[in-house]
Amino acid sequence: MKVKVNNKTKHYRTVSYDRRKNEVCLIDQKLLPFKFEIFHAKNYEETADAIKNMTVRGAPAIAATAVFGLIQGITDYRGSDINEFSLHVEKVFKCLASARPTAVDPVNAMKIVLERMKQGKTIKEMKNFALAAANEFVDLSVEQCAQIGKHGAKLIHNGMRILTHCNAGWLACVDIGTATAPLYEAKSKGINFTVFCDETRPRLQGASLTAWELAQAKIPHFVIADNAAGYLMSKGEIDMVIVGSDRVIAKTGEVINKIGTYTKAVLAKQHGIPFYVAIPWSSIDWERGSALEVEIEERDESEVLGAWGMPVNVSGFSGIESADVIYVRTANPTSHAKNPGFDITPPEFVTGIITPAGIIEPRKIQTLRGKIKAAPVSYIQNP
Amino acid sequence: MKVKVNNKTKHYRTVSYDRRKNEVCLIDQKLLPFKFEIFHAKNYEETADAIKNMTVRGAPAIAATAVFGLIQGITDYRGSDINEFSLHVEKVFKCLASARPTAVDPVNAMKIVLERMKQGKTIKEMKNFALAAANEFVDLSVEQCAQIGKHGAKLIHNGMRILTHCNAGWLACVDIGTATAPLYEAKSKGINFTVFCDETRPRLQGASLTAWELAQAKIPHFVIADNAAGYLMSKGEIDMVIVGSDRVIAKTGEVINKIGTYTKAVLAKQHGIPFYVAIPWSSIDWERGSALEVEIEERDESEVLGAWGMPVNVSGFSGIESADVIYVRTANPTSHAKNPGFDITPPEFVTGIITPAGIIEPRKIQTLRGKIKAAPVSYIQNP
Repeated sequence: MKVKVNNKTKHYRTVSYDRRKNEVCLIDQKLLPFKFEIFHAKNYEETADAIKNMTVRGAPAIAATAVFGLIQGITDYRGSDINEFSLHVEKVFKCLASARPTAVDPVNAMKIVLERMKQGKTIKEMKNFALAAANEFVDLSVEQCAQIGKHGAKLIHNGMRILTHCNAGWLACVDIGTATAPLYEAKSKGINFTVFCDETRPRLQGASLTAWELAQAKIPHFVIADNAAGYLMSKGEIDMVIVGSDRVIAKTGEVINKIGTYTKAVLAKQHGIPFYVAIPWSSIDWERGSALEVEIEERDESEVLGAWGMPVNVSGFSGIESADVIYVRTANPTSHAKNPGFDITPPEFVTGIITPAGIIEPRKIQTLRGKIKAAPVSYIQNP
Repeated sequence: MKVKVNNKTKHYRTVSYDRRKNEVCLIDQKLLPFKFEIFHAKNYEETADAIKNMTVRGAPAIAATAVFGLIQGITDYRGSDINEFSLHVEKVFKCLASARPTAVDPVNAMKIVLERMKQGKTIKEMKNFALAAANEFVDLSVEQCAQIGKHGAKLIHNGMRILTHCNAGWLACVDIGTATAPLYEAKSKGINFTVFCDETRPRLQGASLTAWELAQAKIPHFVIADNAAGYLMSKGEIDMVIVGSDRVIAKTGEVINKIGTYTKAVLAKQHGIPFYVAIPWSSIDWERGSALEVEIEERDESEVLGAWGMPVNVSGFSGIESADVIYVRTANPTSHAKNPGFDITPPEFVTGIITPAGIIEPRKIQTLRGKIKAAPVSYIQNP
C-alpha cells in the first residue's frame, strides 16, 4: 500500500526481498504508529530475530518473512558440496521455524519452497527453483487479499459506517490485508464510508495499526474504546462489521479471533447488523472437529495491567520527554489480571466469510475444499 | 473502609470534615492506585478546587464534599451582620455549585443544608442547624450504601465469580459504595468469591480504583480487558454481574451508566447470567419519560487516544523514571476518536435494581416512590 514518508508517497509491501543485496526488508512494526522505518535484515539470523522481536507480526506477513529468510540463507551458501548445502538449508529452516514456535504458517510456507527446490539437480538450479517458489508464494498471498477485497467491496455502499476490530490489515499480510481489503477496494472505487476502529485492548492494534493504515489510505475513521461499539450500534450508527480471523474451523464454521470479536458479534446480532469475517485460505482449519480442540492462549498479564504509548503533554498531567514508546502501569500495583488472547465466535453470529473465492456462510466452508485443491498443499493441511 | 498505610490499618471515609481545624479531608483520587494520601482543604475555595480537579469524584462523594465545603465557608464567617452572612453563604454556595456544573447531586445536597439553616434565628443557631443537617446528610448517604450491601449480599454465595464494571465503590461515595457494597457485606459474612474487574476504558476506573479497593479489602480479584468478559461468560466463568448507575429512569427502568455497561448486559442476557444494578435513592430520575431525554456526554477524545499510568520497566521496552502518573499516546498520532461517556441499558437486560429498600425489577421502580417520601426532598426531585 502507499505510504507518505518525508512528503513522498511510495508503494510499500510489509515484507519484501532485495535480491541484489540479499536483504529481507520489513516495515518495522515496533515503531508504528509513531515512526515509519524499513528494517533491513542482512542475513537469515537477523530475519529470524525480526520475527522473534515482533518487528513483523501477523500470520501471512510472518510466513512471507520466513520464506524470504530461507531464500536469504540458501543464497548465502557459497560452496559446491550438495550434502553440505542440504545441511545448511536444514539449519536455516530450523532457525526460522523456531523464531515463532506457535505459528504454523511460516513452517508450511517454507515447506512449499523446499518441496519445489527438489526439482533442481544442481545447487544453482535448486537456488533458482527456491527463489521462484518463494516469489510465487508471496505473490499468491497478495493475490488472495486482492480477491478478498473484490468480493468484500460489493458489501460496501456510500455512507456506510463500518466497525472493525484489531488489525487484520496489510501490515499483518504482505499487502492489502484481509479485513481491510474490502475497505481499500471500496475506497479505490470512489465509495465514501467511515470506519470505526475498536482500539482493541490490551495490545491496542486497532488504535495504533489499523488507524495508521486508514490514515495513510485517507479513509475517514474514528478510534473508539472497545466499550463504545455497543452504544453506537444501539444508536443505529454502525451498518456493518468486518473482522479478520486467526483460524476458522471448517467443520463447524466457528471463528477464532482476537479477544473481543465474540462480543462484537453478539452485539451485531442483537441489532441486526451484518457481521463478516475476511480470511485467506491459510486461515481455514480443515481438520479439527471443533474450536474447543484449539487451545486459547493465556497471554502475559502485563498486557492488561498497563499500556504502551508515546509520552506526550496533556494539560493537567506531567509529560515526559521520550523518543521511544514506553510502558506505563495503569492498574492497581498489587492486582493481577487474566488475559485470554482470543475468543470463539459460533457460526450463528456470522453473516458470511469473505474468502478469495467469494462470500460464503460459515457452516458451508467445507464445500470450498474441492475448489481450492489447486492451491499449494499448505492451504489444505493447515494444522 | 479500612486502608493499610505504612503497616497500619485504619478506617477512612472518602470525604470527612475536621470540625476543629475546619478542614475538608479527601482521599486524593488523582494519586490512586499508586499513592494513598489525604488532601486537607483549608477553606471552601480549596474544597471547590478539589471537586474541579478530580481529587474527589463520584456523585455521592462530590455531594458530601460540597456539603462540607458549604459548612466550611459558613464557619469561616466571623461577623455578626445577618445580611452580610446571607450574602457570604450565597457566594460560598455558588462557588461550590460551579465546581462541577453538570453534577446535580452537590446542588441538591447543599440545598438541603440551606433549607434546614432557615430554622435558626441567630447566625450561631443557623451555623449549628447547617452543621447538623450536613452530618445527617452524609450519614444517611453511608446508611443507604450499607442497606444496599445487606440486600445485595443475599445474592452472593460461596464460589461465585462476579463481574463488575467501572468504579461504583466506596471511593465514589462517602463509604462502602453502591455496586461494591454487596461484595464487602458478603466478605464480612465469610463468603468466598472472586471478582472480575473490567478495566473500563478509557479512564480505567476498574483497573485502578475498583482493583485498589478490592485489594485493600482482601477480596480475590482479577483485572480483565473490557474485551474479555464475553469470552469468560461463554466459558461459564461468570455467575453474576453487579454494576452501579449514574441515573435510572423510574418511568421506564432504563439504566444510564459508564460506557460498556450495555455491552455487558447484552452478553449477560445471551448467557443467562443475572445482571444487577446497585443505586442509592439520589440516582433515580423520577421525572423524565425516557433515557433519550438525557444528553449522553461526548467526552474529550484524548481519553481514548491515550492512557494514564505510572512508567515502569517491562523487559523489551524502555522504562522511564517518574514519581507521577503520566499520559502516553497509544493511538496513531493523526487519528481522531469518538468518546461517548455513558450508555443506556434497557430494562429487559436488567435482572434487578438493588436499592436501599431492597431488590426490585427495573420497571417497578416507580412503585417505590411512595415508600421514600420520608427521605430528604432532593431524593424525589432529582432533575
